[in-house]
Amino acid sequence: MKYELYYWPEIEGRGEYVRLALEEAGAAYVDVARGPRGTSAMMKMMEAKGTPPFAPPFLKAGKLVIGQTANILLYLGSRHGLAPKTEAGKLWLHQLQLTITDFVVEIHDTHHPLGPSLYYEDQKPAAKKRTAEFWDERVPKFLGYFERLLADNRGAYVTGRKLTYVDLSLFQIVAGLRYAFPKRMTAFEKDVPGLVGLHDRVATRPNIKAYLASERRIAFNEQGIFRRYKELDN
Amino acid sequence: MKYELYYWPEIEGRGEYVRLALEEAGAAYVDVARGPRGTSAMMKMMEAKGTPPFAPPFLKAGKLVIGQTANILLYLGSRHGLAPKTEAGKLWLHQLQLTITDFVVEIHDTHHPLGPSLYYEDQKPAAKKRTAEFWDERVPKFLGYFERLLADNRGAYVTGRKLTYVDLSLFQIVAGLRYAFPKRMTAFEKDVPGLVGLHDRVATRPNIKAYLASERRIAFNEQGIFRRYKELDN
Repeated sequence: MKYELYYWPEIEGRGEYVRLALEEAGAAYVDVARGPRGTSAMMKMMEAKGTPPFAPPFLKAGKLVIGQTANILLYLGSRHGLAPKTEAGKLWLHQLQLTITDFVVEIHDTHHPLGPSLYYEDQKPAAKKRTAEFWDERVPKFLGYFERLLADNRGAYVTGRKLTYVDLSLFQIVAGLRYAFPKRMTAFEKDVPGLVGLHDRVATRPNIKAYLASERRIAFNEQGIFRRYKELDN
Repeated sequence: MKYELYYWPEIEGRGEYVRLALEEAGAAYVDVARGPRGTSAMMKMMEAKGTPPFAPPFLKAGKLVIGQTANILLYLGSRHGLAPKTEAGKLWLHQLQLTITDFVVEIHDTHHPLGPSLYYEDQKPAAKKRTAEFWDERVPKFLGYFERLLADNRGAYVTGRKLTYVDLSLFQIVAGLRYAFPKRMTAFEKDVPGLVGLHDRVATRPNIKAYLASERRIAFNEQGIFRRYKELDN
């Protein structure tokens, strides 16, 4: 079975956490909306009766259509060795992914504090304030939490010796913050050496390394979650 | 086994979605932080080694400590007949709950657009703008989606004839929006008759009815997710 991933074709966005899991697992998949008529196929599925997803990303796995990034990873994790086998382990990992989900919303809100339907250009002063609060309070809180988990278990990865989908997502968080806020992130990285090490370990895994060098990896840009706006990075 | 729920004692907040599920199920639980020294017990668990939750709410179920509202409901749903039995049904329900989770963040952001660590009083003009966008774009999109699901399956509940934890959460969303935005919500309700009906059906279920009339149900107030600020309701 070939998975079908449905997500906006021009951005990494929330789809990227799914792509990284599929790539690490070496799973066969099509990134549907990047192909011809893919976006309209995606829209059609959202308008269907039955169990239409609210928003991309969603994954078609045989007859199943699974929406919500963390839910997709919950499904993939068990099937591709990217999650623990016990129920307790699975719930713990999913809990961590949902915490990353919360953080991703806050990252997005740095450039869209007044709402997702307005342009960034129409909310610049608010974005500046939100970004300051984000770096003062929220980044230390979220990344400090994951740094502590890494330090406590002395593992190469967040849950210990074995890589999970949460590690792949944390890789993306570090990479994204480096792209969007190069100055701020450089200054901050000394506080999270464990996470920086984790990022580097993930980046050199053979499947991830090949993926990052391929055309399947979309470059960061100013339509996604992580946007580089000079005025927010100082 | 008696469950232990850990959540801020003065607000419904995100803990309420868990309380509603426990109450409907008739499960034995203690709302720990509402008892003596409960909040400090809660803080201690978040500072523990091992698998500390990032934030309340979290649920202690025997040896398990489960964090993140939707994750707790995923766990409780299977155990208390508040979710379908098939894997496909469980994933679909969880997906819906995660969509509600996204909506709850946006509800919170109406009064805290510039960040959760600042006071509302310091972000009133931004809150006004965010609230306008919320009611113009986001409420119709989110609630319209659930209204469509209800209409399509012609069931009493979102997944059909049987109540699930998602229905309990939607009850709370309708009740909360009525509290926070009485004028706006009154005008909007004609567009979501299915959801209004669902709210009423949930409210009259014996266990929920008894809960709502009890002291266990905390009143809505201006520290929670749903806050009544007159200046945002017009």
